[in-house]
Amino acid sequence: MKVIVIGATGTLGKAVSNELAARHDIIEVGKTKGQYQVDLTSSESIKALFEKTGKVDAIIATTGKVHFGPLAEMTAEQFKIGLHDKLLGQIDLALIGQHYLNAGGSITLTSGILTEQPIRLGVNATTVNAALEGFVLAAAAEFNNGIRINIVSPTVLQESLKSYGSFFIGFEPVAASRAALAYSRSVDGIQTGQVYRVW
Amino acid sequence: MKVIVIGATGTLGKAVSNELAARHDIIEVGKTKGQYQVDLTSSESIKALFEKTGKVDAIIATTGKVHFGPLAEMTAEQFKIGLHDKLLGQIDLALIGQHYLNAGGSITLTSGILTEQPIRLGVNATTVNAALEGFVLAAAAEFNNGIRINIVSPTVLQESLKSYGSFFIGFEPVAASRAALAYSRSVDGIQTGQVYRVW
Ligand SMILES: NC(=O)c1ccc[n+]([C@@H]2O[C@H](COP(=O)([O-])OP(=O)(O)OC[C@H]3O[C@@H](n4cnc5c(N)ncnc54)[C@H](OP(=O)(O)O)[C@@H]3O)[C@@H](O)[C@H]2O)c1
Ligand SMILES: NC(=O)c1ccc[n+]([C@@H]2O[C@H](COP(=O)([O-])OP(=O)(O)OC[C@H]3O[C@@H](n4cnc5c(N)ncnc54)[C@H](OP(=O)(O)O)[C@@H]3O)[C@@H](O)[C@H]2O)c1
Repeated sequence: MKVIVIGATGTLGKAVSNELAARHDIIEVGKTKGQYQVDLTSSESIKALFEKTGKVDAIIATTGKVHFGPLAEMTAEQFKIGLHDKLLGQIDLALIGQHYLNAGGSITLTSGILTEQPIRLGVNATTVNAALEGFVLAAAAEFNNGIRINIVSPTVLQESLKSYGSFFIGFEPVAASRAALAYSRSVDGIQTGQVYRVW
Repeated sequence: MKVIVIGATGTLGKAVSNELAARHDIIEVGKTKGQYQVDLTSSESIKALFEKTGKVDAIIATTGKVHFGPLAEMTAEQFKIGLHDKLLGQIDLALIGQHYLNAGGSITLTSGILTEQPIRLGVNATTVNAALEGFVLAAAAEFNNGIRINIVSPTVLQESLKSYGSFFIGFEPVAASRAALAYSRSVDGIQTGQVYRVW
């Protein structure tokens, strides 16, 4: 299969690309690095990417910025960071990407454990993750041409503990390579509308 | 208690205001009608409203526009309708409203059955509702000054069947007065972080 991984140059995306490369042809995409570049916050940029790559069999997103900060001081402008980047970025990838999928193709997005296990400063992340999981539930039911869509919800990665382990005290981390397995389950499997929790 | 109901002039909000008026002083707010007006898509408008009303004991939102349309044709611009109106509108009300709540005050938002039971054309609604429920989960855990926050998820209202019953074939409708009870449970009760499903 021809599999495009947006975020392939990141901590999680590198592991996902490695995992899938054993069986598939991977197109590695980043914002600044990778084989191709895209900015998911721009519909034009997403369309331009697919015009370059042509149709694919699977689309994976392992990207997304959210705002971390105290609820007591949060503003709508800060809240928009996660809504426009991680949330609408991944959704727009799915909205546009559906038209560049071969028959029976799949879309796999990324949320995270904060959907269900909120942490201090993380209200934007929980909101955005919950929204993405809602999107997948509804989109899976409405796609009627064999397109499947799932989402992977990893806990904190071992590889990321140095950067933000202090936010995740008491959370058992997983290796990125273990989280990556869930993307294979989505791409190579038959399910749709699933949240694959890795924790 | 002094209770402000944003959306009090709407189908659901009228019933909520009636239900709560039996025990509380209600400030009825609409976008164009009501005792006061506010546009929840503007932080300035929300702040101006609270500057007029002063501190309150409970904030309720029964508002929110989303985009209905086929997933196969949906664009990011259309998707933003729900993100900026029903989602960020209610969230910004909570973000700003927290500073205008008396000690022990509560916030009650509105999602809907589409969070869990998607319908054709409804992917924007499911996404937005799921996001609001995620926000409530995380905000309830982070508020540390006695502020409570819950959300009511009604199924389709009997009063709305004429307008969009055809989207809800097979859904058992409830009277707005029954959905309104859940808002009393939130305002008069002691729970926080709850999704009150009315279906
Ligand atoms: N790391 C964790 O512990 C963890 C746990 C659970 C969930 N997650 C979620 O997993 C996702 C990836 O996390 P990560 O730690 O792997 O992040 P990361 O290391 O910062 O990697 C982010 C990747 O996304 C790309 N990117 C950034 N902004 C983009 C944009 N606007 N358009 C397209 N691509 C963009 C980056 O490209 P360049 O490198 O080219 O700039 C990079 O490939 C996030 O949604 C995160 O919330 C992470
Ligand atoms: N009706 C149902 O069957 C049903 C079922 C489940 C969930 N819900 C949810 O319940 C909420 C209310 O639904 P509804 O049917 O009662 O709606 P509605 O009858 O259209 O009433 C909307 C209310 O919100 C106000 N409003 C509209 N835009 C606003 C804005 N930008 N800022 C502040 N206020 C604004 C309106 O004020 P004006 O009248 O002054 O313009 C009105 O009071 C929605 O979130 C809906 O998704 C409804």
